[in-house]
Amino acid sequence: MRPLPQPAREAMTLAPVLHALGDPVRLELTRRAKDHPESTCAALAEGLEVPLSTLTNHWRILREAGVITMTVDGRHRRIRVRADELGERFPGVLEPILRVAEEEPL
Amino acid sequence: MRPLPQPAREAMTLAPVLHALGDPVRLELTRRAKDHPESTCAALAEGLEVPLSTLTNHWRILREAGVITMTVDGRHRRIRVRADELGERFPGVLEPILRVAEEEPL
Repeated sequence: MRPLPQPAREAMTLAPVLHALGDPVRLELTRRAKDHPESTCAALAEGLEVPLSTLTNHWRILREAGVITMTVDGRHRRIRVRADELGERFPGVLEPILRVAEEEPL
Repeated sequence: MRPLPQPAREAMTLAPVLHALGDPVRLELTRRAKDHPESTCAALAEGLEVPLSTLTNHWRILREAGVITMTVDGRHRRIRVRADELGERFPGVLEPILRVAEEEPL
């Protein structure tokens, strides 16, 4: 299992994180990933009517902003929200966003 | 003084708000506007090396997402962050974002 490239915690900045979360599909993917750690990309995207290439792009944006870690596990890619690191770097930012997203269905 | 078109509080959704805040210049403009209510666009953009057309676009994105109210006051446009409405619609989201932005200079 190897993680794909991602910014170190110290290199994260807020605007790209907000940009990454500022899309309804990416927000929903992040919400689901937070609730189901180490799920595969495919499982997390279930039921979303989004082309695979768009999904791939969404995951990349989330990973490059520092929101998620993506690990290659054989043929699967597993996702984990970097909640602890985000919390240290941007205290109090992630939780209310995911709470509101939960009540605002896609 | 008349306000330019903006979404009603009930019509706001989270992703466009995060998208609007997910740009370093827009985040900084919002932070300044929050600290200096009813300032003009020009005053709030002071010192930012951003072309006027880009700034106009930034203010429009913030307004259309519901982050700010823009009021035409003669030749000026005055900005107010819709902090109360954002707080009612998206509890706890705005404050930590602006707090982090404050510590993360542009």
